[in-house]
Amino acid sequence: MIRLKPDNTSCIFCEIVSKRADASVVYEDEKVIAFMDIHPLGEGHVLVIPKHHAEYVQELSAVQQKHLFSISNQIIKAQRAVGFGEKGTNILINDGKAANQRVPHVHVHLVPRTKGDLFSSAFRVLLHITGLMGMVTKRATLEEQAAAIRASLDQL
Amino acid sequence: MIRLKPDNTSCIFCEIVSKRADASVVYEDEKVIAFMDIHPLGEGHVLVIPKHHAEYVQELSAVQQKHLFSISNQIIKAQRAVGFGEKGTNILINDGKAANQRVPHVHVHLVPRTKGDLFSSAFRVLLHITGLMGMVTKRATLEEQAAAIRASLDQL
Repeated sequence: MIRLKPDNTSCIFCEIVSKRADASVVYEDEKVIAFMDIHPLGEGHVLVIPKHHAEYVQELSAVQQKHLFSISNQIIKAQRAVGFGEKGTNILINDGKAANQRVPHVHVHLVPRTKGDLFSSAFRVLLHITGLMGMVTKRATLEEQAAAIRASLDQL
Repeated sequence: MIRLKPDNTSCIFCEIVSKRADASVVYEDEKVIAFMDIHPLGEGHVLVIPKHHAEYVQELSAVQQKHLFSISNQIIKAQRAVGFGEKGTNILINDGKAANQRVPHVHVHLVPRTKGDLFSSAFRVLLHITGLMGMVTKRATLEEQAAAIRASLDQL
């Protein structure tokens, strides 16, 4: 049983869970869903979320947390296998509004990094934390990236 | 059995594990140790590390990872109980050199944030990711913060 936010129209991630909003999905099971971030901080940036609506990590049970991190790990492997983040990945949870959490539904950012992207990445992070968010990536590109990561996950 | 880096003099975190380097320790058990970051990105910034030397998260076993995240969670609770990060915490792993990992030994950053710290925090993050690192906090202050968090952990 997935508990969405009672007034779930106000949570974009609950909308994605219930398929009322589009997302380029990378992975899905009973408890979690992972999809491409439309404001990527790096190419191939994936968000992994619990299907249950919870604002803070600590609202999740130990079992839910374990599953969330275990799936995140698998996705990092799959990302790297297709060339996203081979040299490094930022694994980030902004837990609470003061920590720049934009959507009040727990999400793990998996941000693939490349060797020379320090300044472009710093710029995108600044856009993100100041709320300007940066460019939205085209759906076709996100779909392509999601398909590559999905195929790679199948082969792990 | 803790496996330190074979040439462990070159890993500052292995030095901390083996008590050859100072740290303001918040928590310690057989598998992990947590201590105050001397280059804090927010007041009360704690690092949680596995005692085993491993560069990437994926080198840790599922059990080690679970323990690392479980202890991190307890520490976040303790930080918040003493006023660090009540409104939010950045939970961050820089996994790999291209992801700004400065010490090649897995570490979870627990960065308490406050409501009005967006620009000072952004500035410190920029110093950190450009390698300038920012100010070192005085040992006495770190010791005080560690003592408060330790006391709070004991009461959880």
